[in-house]
Amino acid sequence: METTTPNWLQKRADLSPERTALIFNDQTWTFGEIFEIAAKTAGKIAGLLPGSSRRAAILMNNTPETVWVIYGLWQLGIETVFLNCRLTASELLYQIKDSETGLIIYDCSLTDTVNELSKALADIPIISVNELAERPASEPAIRKEFALADVCSIMYTSGTTGKPKGVLQTYGNHWWSAAGSVLNIGLQENDSWLCAVPVFHISGLSILMRSIIYGIPVILMEKFDEKTVNRLLSSGQVTIMSAVTSMISRMLAKQGDQPYHPAFRCLLAGGGPVPKPLLDICKERKVPVFQTYGMTETSSQIATLSPEDSLKKLGSAGKPLFPSQLKIMTGEKEAKPLEEGEIFVKGPNVTPGYLNRDEANAASFKDGWFSTGDLGFKDEEGFVYILDRRSDLIISGGENIYPAEIEEILLSHEEVSEAGVTGIPDEKWGHVPYGFIVAEKPVKEDEILAFCRERLASYKVPKRIIQVKQLPRNGANKLMRRLLSKLI
Amino acid sequence: METTTPNWLQKRADLSPERTALIFNDQTWTFGEIFEIAAKTAGKIAGLLPGSSRRAAILMNNTPETVWVIYGLWQLGIETVFLNCRLTASELLYQIKDSETGLIIYDCSLTDTVNELSKALADIPIISVNELAERPASEPAIRKEFALADVCSIMYTSGTTGKPKGVLQTYGNHWWSAAGSVLNIGLQENDSWLCAVPVFHISGLSILMRSIIYGIPVILMEKFDEKTVNRLLSSGQVTIMSAVTSMISRMLAKQGDQPYHPAFRCLLAGGGPVPKPLLDICKERKVPVFQTYGMTETSSQIATLSPEDSLKKLGSAGKPLFPSQLKIMTGEKEAKPLEEGEIFVKGPNVTPGYLNRDEANAASFKDGWFSTGDLGFKDEEGFVYILDRRSDLIISGGENIYPAEIEEILLSHEEVSEAGVTGIPDEKWGHVPYGFIVAEKPVKEDEILAFCRERLASYKVPKRIIQVKQLPRNGANKLMRRLLSKLI
Repeated sequence: METTTPNWLQKRADLSPERTALIFNDQTWTFGEIFEIAAKTAGKIAGLLPGSSRRAAILMNNTPETVWVIYGLWQLGIETVFLNCRLTASELLYQIKDSETGLIIYDCSLTDTVNELSKALADIPIISVNELAERPASEPAIRKEFALADVCSIMYTSGTTGKPKGVLQTYGNHWWSAAGSVLNIGLQENDSWLCAVPVFHISGLSILMRSIIYGIPVILMEKFDEKTVNRLLSSGQVTIMSAVTSMISRMLAKQGDQPYHPAFRCLLAGGGPVPKPLLDICKERKVPVFQTYGMTETSSQIATLSPEDSLKKLGSAGKPLFPSQLKIMTGEKEAKPLEEGEIFVKGPNVTPGYLNRDEANAASFKDGWFSTGDLGFKDEEGFVYILDRRSDLIISGGENIYPAEIEEILLSHEEVSEAGVTGIPDEKWGHVPYGFIVAEKPVKEDEILAFCRERLASYKVPKRIIQVKQLPRNGANKLMRRLLSKLI
Repeated sequence: METTTPNWLQKRADLSPERTALIFNDQTWTFGEIFEIAAKTAGKIAGLLPGSSRRAAILMNNTPETVWVIYGLWQLGIETVFLNCRLTASELLYQIKDSETGLIIYDCSLTDTVNELSKALADIPIISVNELAERPASEPAIRKEFALADVCSIMYTSGTTGKPKGVLQTYGNHWWSAAGSVLNIGLQENDSWLCAVPVFHISGLSILMRSIIYGIPVILMEKFDEKTVNRLLSSGQVTIMSAVTSMISRMLAKQGDQPYHPAFRCLLAGGGPVPKPLLDICKERKVPVFQTYGMTETSSQIATLSPEDSLKKLGSAGKPLFPSQLKIMTGEKEAKPLEEGEIFVKGPNVTPGYLNRDEANAASFKDGWFSTGDLGFKDEEGFVYILDRRSDLIISGGENIYPAEIEEILLSHEEVSEAGVTGIPDEKWGHVPYGFIVAEKPVKEDEILAFCRERLASYKVPKRIIQVKQLPRNGANKLMRRLLSKLI
């Protein structure tokens, strides 16, 4: 039997109309207000989507209008393709065509990109949020229920090889992700979630989902900025925040020894393993950091360290959340404790598959388990440690080298504020690691190499250290290791 | 696609092995310990159930052994029939036959009942917990996953007419019930739930479920006893409790003006409408009472007042929880605000139906909505007020009379500690209400009738007031109004 629930936003507005739903700069909206705006926005969108399509794409940054459009689309049951605003027109074009999108809504900061796009997309309506606001609002049929098996959102991921693939995320995927998280970190009356990551990524979108499901405010930031974040975390206004490593580094560097407000109870650190030295600083300064592991295909976190284990298992991403499972495979066999292998996941938060990709789906799913391509191990107590993304694995002279391990060492050097490592082709060894660092002052390559030699097996020591102004990162601020080689 | 999750108890033991799971008198068990005991119990049960059956019944009071048996059965994927220990042998026999139970496990306080039963049940194995404990434990295949569509528990309800019906409760029903509750009242690190209601009723069983899903302790009581409850609520050890009206009356009478510990944050009041005077006392004494509405068919609460509305909507059962819906119907039409009608409910916590009762199922479900037979209305803001169970409605001279309304008045009389009202056949009016009261001192009938006349329309004033030692109540301590007439 198909599982249905009431329309989430309508339900939340009915249950908690007066509670704060969204805070953006100095503006505040309640759930009652947000549902009204969403319904009105739905009334403006209705009729724009050609009858043959059930999908619309949005190309929008973190603004309240983005929230209205997303919520408005869901009121109508339209599947929403989340386009990454940092992509080039040709990259976007591919995703728009591949997803068979029938409508594009964009925010005006992206007009240049859209102008390029529109030449190639004469047959698809493209409308800016400003134009949308000017349209008359009809009174469309608002969805009374959400069927959990229905697709809610689609986000593209690149994977190791080949063209980007559209990850299908159902209402059920989002629900179970939110449920898994609340059973890990709890839900308190004063909770509020800071969203300084893009809503076009699952890290941001999942915060909007939780806000509706839990009935708590989202504090939405247009862009991450450590000064504002530190002010919010020190004020007591924020209890939970999602962040990636580089954000945490910048926040802590700026904040210094000043403690955050005690109401700030959870810093979910995702987007790749957090270097141990940074975790040590958090521990020392009593910053409540919980390392997480997740991806677009798992609708955000699938494993997270729990509050009670956060200090004793520093460096681990914890255990798979209540609704989910995770196993480590070496070939056809499940790995023993401490034995590294590929990470497989399963659970109702895991995507039903990629859009129109029978081959990739067949390759990615085995007996209901999704093959992540990532590498890790479990310790004797079942805590998961993420070693690296498989695509970034460097194989050098038959030895496995994990960039994260080297980056951790580089970051522990007092002059280095950011570090990335990748494999560069080498005649003798196949590949060798190169290190890329960001530092305020000029740093001597020899000094860093000597520092590494003291701390790493010789085959792991980078062949070269290259100082750069910034590292390549994606919209979620994740380090894009495969772009590092372009910096040489 | 079928939704599965990991085996809940195994998962909880994996996530939080050291957390307290169960407290009974002076004994305490962690989730790690409980899972081990459950697995061992499963090893003792395995092989007892004939191959042709997938159902076992338990006839057990609130003890740790009951918990081990329930959890043990679930490890094996056996559907569990929860028998009410207060029933007579002939009533039990009907349920055992109707449910096609293949095994009965009972606790030794019920040996007399079982001796009677066993004569009629030569073909079904019946085993006491003591005998079970003596059996050697095999190492059976523990279920790795729970499919949410699978039946987990079966409980019999009587309904208005006809033989009792077995309500099917799936794993999904229990999951969504727990999820709906946590999204209403939150989840804090120090939470613990006091279970002073029978685990053979959904009110008690749902507490065990939440304990596992949320990872919080259950404080299990063999029997409700106001002195012990008051001590626990005053100690800070309990944050949440489920209770019915008569329990709350007794607790408050004993506790007097002494405040409970501030950690006690939620008293869920179920099992029928709570009289307004009692709610007023709670409000005055700052007892955090939240009226709920639910039944076996909804796997416990389906509507509950939220913390923010608990004072301003005293007397309401709140709104349907996040995953659920509730509507009031008058015939084929949805009722207007304040218009009374029959309550229909829908949601993933609602039973898929009664066991082997095609006719009752066809009559109870309309377009996915379950017809509860209960009467209520919504106010202009959508808050639900439960008037009464339809079966208890008294129709007198064409006027509708709701027993609860009269009981509320009787209870507001300072001498009356418990009250029940039912309709007694009358030549002139069809039915007339009779009042049954419990009071410490002898009370004059005329005095009470005069008291009622001052407060009720003349047709609502009971024809007679009968003082009794105790009122008929079922295992969940719910008033059984239809048995009142036997007290005349």
